[in-house]
Amino acid sequence: MAEPRILVAGASGYAGALAARLIWRHPGLALAAITSRSDAGTRLDALYPHHRVPLELEELDLDRHADVDGAIVAYPHGASAPVVAGLRARGVKVVDLSADFRLADLEEYERWYGEHGAPSLLEEAVYGLPELRRDEIRDSSLVAGPGCYPTAAILALAPLARAGLIADVVIDAKSGVSGAGRAPTSKTHFVSVDENVTPYGIGRHRHMPEIDQELGALGMEDVVAAFTPHLLPLDQGELVSCYVTTAAPVDQAEVDAAFARDYADEPFIELTTVAPGVRDVRDTNVCRIHARADERTGKVFVFAAIDNLWKGTSSQAVQSLNLMFGLDETAGIA
Amino acid sequence: MAEPRILVAGASGYAGALAARLIWRHPGLALAAITSRSDAGTRLDALYPHHRVPLELEELDLDRHADVDGAIVAYPHGASAPVVAGLRARGVKVVDLSADFRLADLEEYERWYGEHGAPSLLEEAVYGLPELRRDEIRDSSLVAGPGCYPTAAILALAPLARAGLIADVVIDAKSGVSGAGRAPTSKTHFVSVDENVTPYGIGRHRHMPEIDQELGALGMEDVVAAFTPHLLPLDQGELVSCYVTTAAPVDQAEVDAAFARDYADEPFIELTTVAPGVRDVRDTNVCRIHARADERTGKVFVFAAIDNLWKGTSSQAVQSLNLMFGLDETAGIA
Amino acid sequence: MAEPRILVAGASGYAGALAARLIWRHPGLALAAITSRSDAGTRLDALYPHHRVPLELEELDLDRHADVDGAIVAYPHGASAPVVAGLRARGVKVVDLSADFRLADLEEYERWYGEHGAPSLLEEAVYGLPELRRDEIRDSSLVAGPGCYPTAAILALAPLARAGLIADVVIDAKSGVSGAGRAPTSKTHFVSVDENVTPYGIGRHRHMPEIDQELGALGMEDVVAAFTPHLLPLDQGELVSCYVTTAAPVDQAEVDAAFARDYADEPFIELTTVAPGVRDVRDTNVCRIHARADERTGKVFVFAAIDNLWKGTSSQAVQSLNLMFGLDETAGIA
Amino acid sequence: MAEPRILVAGASGYAGALAARLIWRHPGLALAAITSRSDAGTRLDALYPHHRVPLELEELDLDRHADVDGAIVAYPHGASAPVVAGLRARGVKVVDLSADFRLADLEEYERWYGEHGAPSLLEEAVYGLPELRRDEIRDSSLVAGPGCYPTAAILALAPLARAGLIADVVIDAKSGVSGAGRAPTSKTHFVSVDENVTPYGIGRHRHMPEIDQELGALGMEDVVAAFTPHLLPLDQGELVSCYVTTAAPVDQAEVDAAFARDYADEPFIELTTVAPGVRDVRDTNVCRIHARADERTGKVFVFAAIDNLWKGTSSQAVQSLNLMFGLDETAGIA
Repeated sequence: MAEPRILVAGASGYAGALAARLIWRHPGLALAAITSRSDAGTRLDALYPHHRVPLELEELDLDRHADVDGAIVAYPHGASAPVVAGLRARGVKVVDLSADFRLADLEEYERWYGEHGAPSLLEEAVYGLPELRRDEIRDSSLVAGPGCYPTAAILALAPLARAGLIADVVIDAKSGVSGAGRAPTSKTHFVSVDENVTPYGIGRHRHMPEIDQELGALGMEDVVAAFTPHLLPLDQGELVSCYVTTAAPVDQAEVDAAFARDYADEPFIELTTVAPGVRDVRDTNVCRIHARADERTGKVFVFAAIDNLWKGTSSQAVQSLNLMFGLDETAGIA
Repeated sequence: MAEPRILVAGASGYAGALAARLIWRHPGLALAAITSRSDAGTRLDALYPHHRVPLELEELDLDRHADVDGAIVAYPHGASAPVVAGLRARGVKVVDLSADFRLADLEEYERWYGEHGAPSLLEEAVYGLPELRRDEIRDSSLVAGPGCYPTAAILALAPLARAGLIADVVIDAKSGVSGAGRAPTSKTHFVSVDENVTPYGIGRHRHMPEIDQELGALGMEDVVAAFTPHLLPLDQGELVSCYVTTAAPVDQAEVDAAFARDYADEPFIELTTVAPGVRDVRDTNVCRIHARADERTGKVFVFAAIDNLWKGTSSQAVQSLNLMFGLDETAGIA
Repeated sequence: MAEPRILVAGASGYAGALAARLIWRHPGLALAAITSRSDAGTRLDALYPHHRVPLELEELDLDRHADVDGAIVAYPHGASAPVVAGLRARGVKVVDLSADFRLADLEEYERWYGEHGAPSLLEEAVYGLPELRRDEIRDSSLVAGPGCYPTAAILALAPLARAGLIADVVIDAKSGVSGAGRAPTSKTHFVSVDENVTPYGIGRHRHMPEIDQELGALGMEDVVAAFTPHLLPLDQGELVSCYVTTAAPVDQAEVDAAFARDYADEPFIELTTVAPGVRDVRDTNVCRIHARADERTGKVFVFAAIDNLWKGTSSQAVQSLNLMFGLDETAGIA
Repeated sequence: MAEPRILVAGASGYAGALAARLIWRHPGLALAAITSRSDAGTRLDALYPHHRVPLELEELDLDRHADVDGAIVAYPHGASAPVVAGLRARGVKVVDLSADFRLADLEEYERWYGEHGAPSLLEEAVYGLPELRRDEIRDSSLVAGPGCYPTAAILALAPLARAGLIADVVIDAKSGVSGAGRAPTSKTHFVSVDENVTPYGIGRHRHMPEIDQELGALGMEDVVAAFTPHLLPLDQGELVSCYVTTAAPVDQAEVDAAFARDYADEPFIELTTVAPGVRDVRDTNVCRIHARADERTGKVFVFAAIDNLWKGTSSQAVQSLNLMFGLDETAGIA
């Protein structure tokens, strides 16, 4: 069988460029074309030498570019929905990296992001966290790639949510600067970030509803997670530190059992007995998790580290594509 | 009146060296001598050119060096107590930077640090956070410089503790590497820290009892703070992110009032309406605090930034010395 | 006598903001006003909390703002000349931080920068490197603050140029990102700089003619210095590594004598026997120099470290102001 | 045919650990064992989680471990020679990462490193830079992996040396901290390196004789390269900036022709028209080179970027192993 041919739309941003690189070197997928709204005419290896993808970015033209089997769409929120709709109308399987199809509830979407560009597609979209929704993704033609923070936070907390143990939770997240995207701003200026750490999006970060939606689906009830991200002087990597007030006392053995039950066979989850660091997972699709029943406070602490651009975005999208096209889930990302 | 003459014992470490620099340039204190156990015979400006203190480090000899009015002792925990005892026996006013005199309860000290070297001095020691214990410090001859994390955490939470509002609290702390001290270890190796963030001391960091002691003294009852520090790729700076479950609902106006009441006249506390970053306070004695009543979760979030070596250690020690010697509290550190 | 009143025009950039801070805390100068083309109406401490200058930025209005004794103008090249002309016409003594008055030769200026906005002022301008032109600066009313790279390079090479020893020279310069200014660009994006080092301006950096002009004035003849700057992942600091092919063999004693003769009494130059680092001079007006006669190659190596924003720009401007107003040269910057 | 079985001796250091990872994932080589003098009994993925090599480090026992086809030896200079001798005596093909077999001239070796542990092997050793000595490496059983700086410097300058163009050369090198190895020292402490840049090994770095030896072999005569390395705040990556005084005037076309002639078909060399950065080559075996005939000075500037741990050390060793075992030269490292 011929390799599925994949389009990457929006390949000049960090996420799209990495997706293009991963498809370019993928043993079972072929990179059909890469497009960009801002950099058409430029070769991707001129923008990102280290990805070594010797293809030219083109203007997206659905009549031409929809002649593919699958697509990763890396557009900003809002701009993505119409492109996804166009691709879906032409039968293309899509993994969308924007927030446009992450929230099942249209009202909730509009509360955080404004009007939705393709609400009729919401029903068919699957939240693309393979460790939680593997079978749904396999059967889906439209996958919403999770936010980077929700990827780490949900993986960190899912076993406790499933066990009905979360009575309250504080999620303190730390991210490298690549999560803020390629646009140069005063926030991403080297001099602003270097030798600094700051919280941001306090009380109103758009990744909040995803976390509550997915943990709620697993059984976390009547809890609004307190989530605060912080910007750190590093490029790639994300650590979430989760502090769970439990519904009932739990000891380390119960915690270990809950995580082993959910994750022992997961190819991309590493349970550790030591504190994880983001260096441990850089440039990988791995989520590294350490869970601890803390005797002093009675809480459960869970620390999860991912690479925000890889497991948090682009390699996780490839993981979903692998499932959607019946390939080995780890192909091209192990 | 002659300027009080000050000894800095243990001046070859980060904290002691900075203390020496601050005294050396102080308009109202004179640097009498600097000592070191490991680097006697070396000039301080050879070890730390940027401090520009052109004095030679000597072996500590109490018979000779106790001929001063005051001392800052920057020894490791355990090693400090006997030196402090020797200085106190000779009538020298001391600010001790170790943990040896921070915990009023001897048993609690021994639980975290082992045997105490001068337990009889515990009673006269004052916890050296001027914003909380200004008058006591002024009247004291032995001040225990707070830990860097407790400095930030206690200042962040004191107004809520005093108001009886803390029903539960999670403190997620982030620190630069200078907090780990000058000794080269695998943890402080550039390659270990760079592009990384890791939690450490999970569930058992020695700064915990200080935080509970001081917040307890202000009115926080039956709460064990969950405290977890993280190591960040920066040199100086500490941010504590505090997530408070309140005993009763509070709104932003009440939060603002509580912080204004406690801190409006404090020379070294800045209350901000924006998120603080550690760059804002680098090389200063300032603690910058942002407190927010979060409607979504009902919690109060407090973020406090300090320079761990300055307000977290050495400049705060000078702030105490200023009080102990009747000088302007801001002299030499504003 | 009343303190001279100083205007800082263009105080919202890195250089102008630091100049404002230095004047604000200066014991002998008063900060009369701060202006900005882009941020008028904003307080400077909102843009730069760590400078702690609680003044509002205003639109420059020469009719109002020229009522001062002196000014530091921190405008881009080209934009600066007319403002400087306006201030000079009103009798204000000016230190200009742009390149507009650095090159004595109008043609040379126009070759590198385009048309000049106030050529008639070139004659009265003095190149503001106090270690070279102290007396001229003292008598001048218009000082051109040197570029940051030329500051370090000229100080590194002046003793050898004066001694007629430079037959050829390679200057490899390394700078932190603040030298690129406050504007966010793809070059100053954290992710571009972090874990990276790149040469730039190869063969055509605008600081070249200054270096040749000043070393030529000291006696370097028929030599075009090879100068290449590199961008490093740090915020402040500049190191120049100079490799001099000498006109005649020299040994270490001759090198030491040449540097001692020129710099032994300079308050802001430190001659070292060890390799200098930019950390040693961060946030200071110091230039730290290490010169070595290399037996293996017969060359002389000179390494000089400065803080590009301080000695390389703003504190050096204050050093000139001190001279121009008859103050202690080190006032406010020691 | 069975895959050649490879031993990595000294796998707990940065270079050996990376070599182990590359062999572990290599499509044509099998990792037989990994040894360590300091960490025997520890699993490599406990020391280096990101390498994901789930093997235990053992004490080296030649009687047991020499039962392999090839070995990479990553021992310190001096300690390596006897181990290499033992492996060679048992017929094992070796790539040695130390300096012990890099210098053909025993006296020269002893001048820089002291007594040699296996001088009789010098004759059979080949300097392992495949772009220069591909055929010799293919036929060799003992390859001396080049130093990281020489790798970049020699590749940068070889085309000019071959063309007889180098009359004089200054090499200013910049390296990340991993080049200093895993041992924690005051030089590798995060606080020493961060926000800093310093030259080191001025006039006496051990990589000098390699550079002169190899460029001399290519035709550079009567020139002693001026080489100075600098330590930068980044983990992996090395940039050499080479300033060549040419024996005769050359223009850009001649420079381009020289580099194209030597490198057009090289799989791991990228000739660029823009300035290279070390980010472009991170975690790759690529050397990226930009050569420029500078009209202003008449010199030729060459900038070359490598990853010091990859092309500078471990992946280059695998490149040699590929040649020695008749595999595709790019296997496992492309």
